Amino acid sequence: MRIVVDAMGGDLAPAAPVEGALLAARELGVGVILVGRPDQVREQLRRWGGPADGLPPGSEVVEATDVVGPDEPPVQAVKHKPNSSLVVAMRLLKERRGQALVSAGNTGALMTAGLFILGRIAGVDRPALGSVFPTRSGRGCLLLDLGAVSDCKPRNLLEFGLMGSAYARYALGLERPRVALLNVGLEEVKGNELVRKAYALLKESGLNFIGNVEGRQVPEDAADVVVCDGFTGNILLKFTEGMASAIFGLIREAASRGARAKLGGLLIRPALRRVKGRLDYAEYGGAPLLGLAGVVIKCHGSSGPKAIRNGIRVARDLAAGGLVEEIARGISRLGTGREGEA
Amino acid sequence: MRIVVDAMGGDLAPAAPVEGALLAARELGVGVILVGRPDQVREQLRRWGGPADGLPPGSEVVEATDVVGPDEPPVQAVKHKPNSSLVVAMRLLKERRGQALVSAGNTGALMTAGLFILGRIAGVDRPALGSVFPTRSGRGCLLLDLGAVSDCKPRNLLEFGLMGSAYARYALGLERPRVALLNVGLEEVKGNELVRKAYALLKESGLNFIGNVEGRQVPEDAADVVVCDGFTGNILLKFTEGMASAIFGLIREAASRGARAKLGGLLIRPALRRVKGRLDYAEYGGAPLLGLAGVVIKCHGSSGPKAIRNGIRVARDLAAGGLVEEIARGISRLGTGREGEA
Repeated sequence: MRIVVDAMGGDLAPAAPVEGALLAARELGVGVILVGRPDQVREQLRRWGGPADGLPPGSEVVEATDVVGPDEPPVQAVKHKPNSSLVVAMRLLKERRGQALVSAGNTGALMTAGLFILGRIAGVDRPALGSVFPTRSGRGCLLLDLGAVSDCKPRNLLEFGLMGSAYARYALGLERPRVALLNVGLEEVKGNELVRKAYALLKESGLNFIGNVEGRQVPEDAADVVVCDGFTGNILLKFTEGMASAIFGLIREAASRGARAKLGGLLIRPALRRVKGRLDYAEYGGAPLLGLAGVVIKCHGSSGPKAIRNGIRVARDLAAGGLVEEIARGISRLGTGREGEA
Repeated sequence: MRIVVDAMGGDLAPAAPVEGALLAARELGVGVILVGRPDQVREQLRRWGGPADGLPPGSEVVEATDVVGPDEPPVQAVKHKPNSSLVVAMRLLKERRGQALVSAGNTGALMTAGLFILGRIAGVDRPALGSVFPTRSGRGCLLLDLGAVSDCKPRNLLEFGLMGSAYARYALGLERPRVALLNVGLEEVKGNELVRKAYALLKESGLNFIGNVEGRQVPEDAADVVVCDGFTGNILLKFTEGMASAIFGLIREAASRGARAKLGGLLIRPALRRVKGRLDYAEYGGAPLLGLAGVVIKCHGSSGPKAIRNGIRVARDLAAGGLVEEIARGISRLGTGREGEA
């Protein structure tokens, strides 16, 4: 098994992707294909040591002279930068040089390159972006779509449920993942037109559909996979990121006022750091792009080596399990789904 | 100025509404009309003391024999319980016995009673539910709609902006509140069809419209009023409630493991309690129902006396400022808005 790694993607590239890939190679026994500017990649390899130039057996460096920035418009970036690490990495996946791809680069560009180069699994209308949100049990809950599809049809939500279920089976190790619909109430009649129609489709899908969940139930392990339209999901993602950082900011502030709070803050700091770790969704192994004809994992832009390593682990599990084939089988069982079009 | 208070609404009724009303009467100098079961209300009045039976001058108790439960279907509850405290309170507001209404009862029933009994301000298509979210500065940001209108048209978002702006002027004391649209990106072209059309309307509205904001900017004081459709808003509200409680749960757990963390937790507890207080949106004075032909404030179901008192303070400020009249003027300036219908 070899995993293609975009060595130039993310705020901490190339240091973090290279170190994360080396960690994965050593600890998980996978080969890695590091895609990026060879001089910069080799400099990092030397820093982290190892035999010869630090490259583990079965691994290689593939040259890509260009880099896609985090804020570049996706379509333009992919069209005008064919030699960027992100685009070259996607071509290597397409050519089956590696069995999966991991990148901490520009999310939109990654999805665009996936659509242009890999294409979709037959029958999938719109690929989605998921992410495992932290839950109390520590197991996590896959939420999708987080922004790939802003205007959803009911059929899209059905496909998200199917793709998310396949992901949860291989990445979270669940035999029959519980799939739920994010809604404003538990009853079938709740919500807007989109979710009411999606409810009917999910109920008949053969998935382990447990009905609606409300937002407050997600951190409480109420479901393993939660589907929503990409507009709602993206807003939720960014809102919770902002809120968690605001909460920890307020705690830091409170712990700097007065001797008592200062001492308490000092003593409790390691415990708080563990809490932050459990909330950090980078820890959970990145965000899958689901519905593309290949396994693609997006790691958070600020990913450190550990988050990259975790992304590679998940990518390996998904590729080994046969994620793409399973989604293809599931979609063909669903049929054309014309009745789901709204 | 007299404020009608639903004495039987909320998890802690009648104790919390009665005590909160007494606090408001003493500290703010308003009269209160306590609506509920007279024996239960008077028992609470005796508990909290004061002259005669504890009722401040200018205040009274009005009998309502029935109570609407927190989970009752709104339309049924309002139709079948004409003598419930919530419905009687709304009638008193309609008859101008009081200038505003405060309730911690069933939100849906409160909105339904408002629509049936008070009616809408002329020209308002759909009234909305707002709430002031905590922000770093402590000033707060009004987010609306939080669930009254699941399927929104662009015109609804425009009206939310106008109504929210009027609220922020009187409740938050801002001369020219910054109104923003909740979206997945900052550029005008971002988001789904609904928000793209709403953007165009808000830009031409004469409001102090500052464009799109992303969720992570809300706690950072990026805007004073943020509008979104009720489906997204309700999901966001419940998700953040669940997440904040999960974070504090994890911190509590972490602070109970090991002597060092335990001591740290003990020392920092008062500081953490202050942080929780700043995050608690009950502290910010309740959630306004905007677009009804009267000032109605919904307090959180778990409101204690202080939250009720704060709700009454905001209700007084809005009634004194002439919120309903200002919204009416704003709506008539906007015109019929046919061009905004989607």
